[in-house]
Amino acid sequence: MADYRAPVKDMLFVINELAGLAEIAALPGYEEATPDLVEAVLEEAAQLAREVIAPTNIIGDEKGTHVVDGQVIVPPEFHAAYKQYIDGGWPGIGCNPEFGGQGLPALISVAVEEMLQSANLAWSLCPLLTHGALHALEAHGSDALKAIYLGEMIAGEWTGTMNLTEPQAGSDLSMVRTNAVPDGDAWRVSGQKIFITWGDQDITENVIHLVLSRTQDAPAGVKGLSLFLVPKYLVNEDGSVGERNNVTTVSVEHKLGIHGSPTCVLDFQNATGYMLGAEGDGLACMFTMMNSARLSVGLEGMSVAERAYQHALEYAADRVQGRAPGHEGSVSILEHPDVRRMLLTMKSEVEAMRAVAYVAIGHLDHAARSGDPDLQVFHQARVDLLTPIVKGWITERAQELTSVGVQIHGGMGYIEETGAAQYMRDARILTIYEGTTGIQAGDLIGRKVLREQGTTLTALLDEIDALAGGLDGELAGIGSALSSANSDARESLTWLLANHASDPTIPGGVSYHFLMMLGALFGGWQLARAASIAADKLAGGTVDNDFYKAKILTAKFYAEQSLPRVVAHARSIQSGSATMMAVTLDQLRGE
Amino acid sequence: MADYRAPVKDMLFVINELAGLAEIAALPGYEEATPDLVEAVLEEAAQLAREVIAPTNIIGDEKGTHVVDGQVIVPPEFHAAYKQYIDGGWPGIGCNPEFGGQGLPALISVAVEEMLQSANLAWSLCPLLTHGALHALEAHGSDALKAIYLGEMIAGEWTGTMNLTEPQAGSDLSMVRTNAVPDGDAWRVSGQKIFITWGDQDITENVIHLVLSRTQDAPAGVKGLSLFLVPKYLVNEDGSVGERNNVTTVSVEHKLGIHGSPTCVLDFQNATGYMLGAEGDGLACMFTMMNSARLSVGLEGMSVAERAYQHALEYAADRVQGRAPGHEGSVSILEHPDVRRMLLTMKSEVEAMRAVAYVAIGHLDHAARSGDPDLQVFHQARVDLLTPIVKGWITERAQELTSVGVQIHGGMGYIEETGAAQYMRDARILTIYEGTTGIQAGDLIGRKVLREQGTTLTALLDEIDALAGGLDGELAGIGSALSSANSDARESLTWLLANHASDPTIPGGVSYHFLMMLGALFGGWQLARAASIAADKLAGGTVDNDFYKAKILTAKFYAEQSLPRVVAHARSIQSGSATMMAVTLDQLRGE
Repeated sequence: MADYRAPVKDMLFVINELAGLAEIAALPGYEEATPDLVEAVLEEAAQLAREVIAPTNIIGDEKGTHVVDGQVIVPPEFHAAYKQYIDGGWPGIGCNPEFGGQGLPALISVAVEEMLQSANLAWSLCPLLTHGALHALEAHGSDALKAIYLGEMIAGEWTGTMNLTEPQAGSDLSMVRTNAVPDGDAWRVSGQKIFITWGDQDITENVIHLVLSRTQDAPAGVKGLSLFLVPKYLVNEDGSVGERNNVTTVSVEHKLGIHGSPTCVLDFQNATGYMLGAEGDGLACMFTMMNSARLSVGLEGMSVAERAYQHALEYAADRVQGRAPGHEGSVSILEHPDVRRMLLTMKSEVEAMRAVAYVAIGHLDHAARSGDPDLQVFHQARVDLLTPIVKGWITERAQELTSVGVQIHGGMGYIEETGAAQYMRDARILTIYEGTTGIQAGDLIGRKVLREQGTTLTALLDEIDALAGGLDGELAGIGSALSSANSDARESLTWLLANHASDPTIPGGVSYHFLMMLGALFGGWQLARAASIAADKLAGGTVDNDFYKAKILTAKFYAEQSLPRVVAHARSIQSGSATMMAVTLDQLRGE
Repeated sequence: MADYRAPVKDMLFVINELAGLAEIAALPGYEEATPDLVEAVLEEAAQLAREVIAPTNIIGDEKGTHVVDGQVIVPPEFHAAYKQYIDGGWPGIGCNPEFGGQGLPALISVAVEEMLQSANLAWSLCPLLTHGALHALEAHGSDALKAIYLGEMIAGEWTGTMNLTEPQAGSDLSMVRTNAVPDGDAWRVSGQKIFITWGDQDITENVIHLVLSRTQDAPAGVKGLSLFLVPKYLVNEDGSVGERNNVTTVSVEHKLGIHGSPTCVLDFQNATGYMLGAEGDGLACMFTMMNSARLSVGLEGMSVAERAYQHALEYAADRVQGRAPGHEGSVSILEHPDVRRMLLTMKSEVEAMRAVAYVAIGHLDHAARSGDPDLQVFHQARVDLLTPIVKGWITERAQELTSVGVQIHGGMGYIEETGAAQYMRDARILTIYEGTTGIQAGDLIGRKVLREQGTTLTALLDEIDALAGGLDGELAGIGSALSSANSDARESLTWLLANHASDPTIPGGVSYHFLMMLGALFGGWQLARAASIAADKLAGGTVDNDFYKAKILTAKFYAEQSLPRVVAHARSIQSGSATMMAVTLDQLRGE
C-alpha cells in the first residue's frame, strides 16, 4: 500500500507562480504569508496528513460508523487523528484572528485542505462542514451567537453541519417542510433532515447544526426559508455545554463510499434554535456556506484523484508483467505505453485541476481584501464563473481518474484490500452533493454566462488567446492546441448567445457540455501558463530542471490528450436540445 | 425498485434487421431459426429473466459467497434460479445437438445471454464460464473426454471454469508456473490459480476446471503451456461422480462488485487432469474460450448498462423535483433537459452497443457455417476486428453509463439500498477480466489492423462512407456527422500506417484511443443503419410508428452527442507516443 505523500512541490509552484502568492501577501492582513512561511506550513501539514490522517483512511472505510441510542459512533482512530489536528491548531489556519484563527489567506489553507482530503476524504468532511457552518455564522450571526459559538468552532472543539435536504426536497429546496415557530428570543424547530454529512459524532462535546427551515406564515417557496443555528447540546451562559437539545440521529446511511463519514437522518422535535440573518433570508445565508463548499468539493475531486494517482503509480512501478519496446525481458508495467498514458492522464489532469482550483481561490482572496472596488468586482466575477466549473468539471473528471487508477491495478484493483477501489467509491458522491453537476452546469450557463451575455467569460477567452499566441519554440504545439480549443469554445459561446432565447430548453440541454468544455479548456490554459513559466525558469538556468521539464511534458500531454475533448463538447453544444426534448416516456421505455 | 424488462422489441429489431437473421437461417443447420421461433424463444427467456433470475440480483450482492471447509457456499436463491434455468433447457440453446444442445445460431443465444446478464450479472457468469469451457472441450478434447463431460456441461448439470491467472502471471501468461507431470494416461497438476470466476459452488455436483499449466521440460514462455481438464470430482466409468480430486478452494475474494460470483483462489496438489489438444498448444486452446468470452464480456457491459438505464428511467419518471421549461409547477425530473441528456446518452449508447455486438455475433454464425470459403474469410475477419472493440469499447463505456445511472438518482444513487450503485460496482470488473482494455487495444491495433495494413478496416470504412452518403432528408444530419467521423477515423488509420514503424511505442501509445474511436464510430454506423431502416418502414406505412420514430431520434442523439468523440480520439492518436514515453519515474512522482 503506497503511503500518501503530499505533492508539496507542485502546490508551492501553483501557489507562488500561478495563483500569485506575492500579490495576495500584499493585501491587507495577509502580510504574514511569505513564501518561507507558506513552505513551512505546507511541510508541517504534509507530515500531519501522511503520518496521522492517512493511516485512518482504510480503517474508516472498513469500520464505518453506526448509531447507538441516537448517538453516532465513529472509529476510535478518528478520535486520535482529530485530537492531533486540533492540538496542532490546524482548524483555524484560515479563520478570523478575532476569534482565535490564524487569518492566513485561503490560498494557503486550501493546500492544507487538499492534504486532509487526500489523506482521508471521509474524515476531512468533518472539518470541511465545520468551516462552512462557521463562515455562515460569522457572516450572518448576531454578535451574541458569534461570541458563544464561533471561537469553539474555529478551535475545532465543536463541529458544524449543514441541514438542507429532506426526502421531498433535494435539488429543489423550495419543497423544504421543516418548520420553526418563535419561542421568546429563540425558535422551536421541527422536522426531519436527511443526507446530513457528519450530522453527529462522538468526537467533540457539541455539534452545531445550521438548519434550513420554514417559518410560520412564511410565503411558499424558497422565500419562506430561514436559517437556524440548532446546537446538539444547549450552551450555558458561561459557555459550558448544558443539556441535550431535541435533535436525534435516526440512522446513518449505508453508502457506496465515504464510509467513515456518518451521513445522518436527523430528527428535530421542537429543538431550540436561533435565527441567523433575517427571516426569509435562509437560502441566501446558506449560499454563504454553499459557494465555499462548492469550491471545497471540487477540491475533493482533485484530492482523491491525486491519492488514487499515487497509489496507481507505485503499483505500476512495482508490478512486473510483460515485455515492452526497447527493453530486455520482463518489465514493470510502467514501461508499457498504454500504462504511461493512463498515469499521465491522471497526473496531467490532477495538476490542471489543482491549478484551476487554486487560481479560483486566489481570486477569492483578492475579492475579499482588495482595496480597489473595480478589482474586487473583477476578482469576484472570476470566482463566480470558476466556482461551478471547479465543482462540476473536477468532480466529473475525478470519476474517470479514480476509475483509471483501478484499471492500472488490473485484477488487483477490483479486490477491496488493494485500496484502489475505495477512491473510486469515495469519489462517486462528489458530483452529487453540494449541488449535482446538472445544478452546477445550470448555474454556470444561466447566472454566470447568459445573465451577463458572456462578458466575464469572453474576457477570459481573450486572455487565453493572448497566452496561446505567445507560446513558441518547444511550446508551439501546446499553443496551437490551446488556440484551437479556445476558438471552439468561443464559437460555442457565440452560438449559445445567439440561440438560447429561441428555445428555453437549450441552456439546460447544453449546459453539461458547456461546463465540461470550459473545464477542459481552463485546465489547458493553466497548464500552458505553467509550461511557459517552466520554460522561462529553464532558460534562466534554474536548478530544479526535472520538475520544470516535467511541467512542460505534462502540459504537452494534456494538450494532446485532454484538450481535444473541447471540440467534441463544442459540437454537442451546437446541436442544441431539440432531439433530447422530442422523445416521449413510452419511447424511452422502448415501447 | 424497477423490475427488469428485457428489451425484446429492440433485440428482435437488431436480430432481424441489422444482423440479418434471414441470411443466418439460410445457413446449414440453422433452418429452425425462423422469426416466429426466435420471437417465442425471446419472450420465454424474458419471462425467466424477469421472474426467476432478476429477483436474485440484490440478494447475491448483499449475501455474497463464502468458503466453508474448502467448499464455496452461494446464496440459496441462486440454487433455485439455477434449477429453473437448467430445467427449462436454457443452457444448451446454442450448443451442439449431438450432445443434447438445441443448436440455435449464436445470434439467438446471445439475446438469451444478454437477458441473464441484465437480470443478474454475477449469477450469469456461471453459465458463461461453463460455455467457454465446454466450447474449448468440444474443439480440443478427445472423443472419450467429450463423451464423459460434454453432455453434462451442455445440460448445465456440471459447470466449467477457466484457470489462467497466477499471482505473477496476469496479462502475461508466459509467467505461469502451475505444472503438470504425466501419470499413465492422465496428468498430475499442481499449482495455485487466482481470480477463478465461479471456481467453485455448491449448486451442481461437479465443477470442471480447465487449467493452463506448464509441462515438464517444456520450453519457457507461452509455448510451454498446455491445457488440462481437471474435474473437482473424478468421474467413474459409468459417468457417475466419484471421489474428490485434489483441488481445494483456498478463499474467495472480497471484491468491489459481482459479490454473487465467487472469485476463487484454487489450490491444485497433484490433481488428476487430462490434456486437451496437443502438448504446448495450451494458449491456442485457451483462446478458443477466450475469443468467445471476450464477446460475452462486451455483452456484459451492454447488459448491465441496459439494466442501469431501466432503473434510472423509472426513477426519473417517478421523482418530482424542480420546475422545467414549458411546464406548470413541479415536474418529474424526466422533464429537465439535462436529465433527458443523461437518459438518452444511456439509451442511445446501449442500443449502439447491442447493434455492434449482435452484428459481430451474426458474422460469427456466418463464419462458422457459410459454405463459401471467401465468405467465411470475410466474416471471420469482421469477427476478428470487432471482437476487441466489442470487449474494450463497450465495457469502457459501461463504466460511464452505469455511473450516469447513479447520477440520475441524485443522493439516492449513493445509498446502496437504491440498487443503482450495484450496477456500477458490478460493471467495474468488465474492463479488466478476459484481457484488460489495454490488451484488447493492443490486439486490435497489432493483430487486427497493422498486421494486414488495415485491409478489413478500410473496407469497413468504405461501407460506412457509402451508407453515410445515402442518408438524406431528416437523416441528413446523421449522415454528415457519420461521414465527418469516418473521415477522422480514416485519417487516423492513414497516419498510423505511415508512422507506426518509426517508433515501436506508437501502437501501444495510441491503441486505447484507436479502440475507443472505432467503437464510437461503429456505434454510429449501426444506429445510422437502424435509422435508415426505420425511415423506410415509416415511409412504407408501418404500424409501429413510435418505435421506429424513436430509432431515428436515438440515432440523431448519438450523432450529436457521441460521434463527436471520434474527432477527439483521432487528434490524440495523431499526437503519437513521444510525450508519454519521455517522462521519468522521478518526474511522475513529482520529484
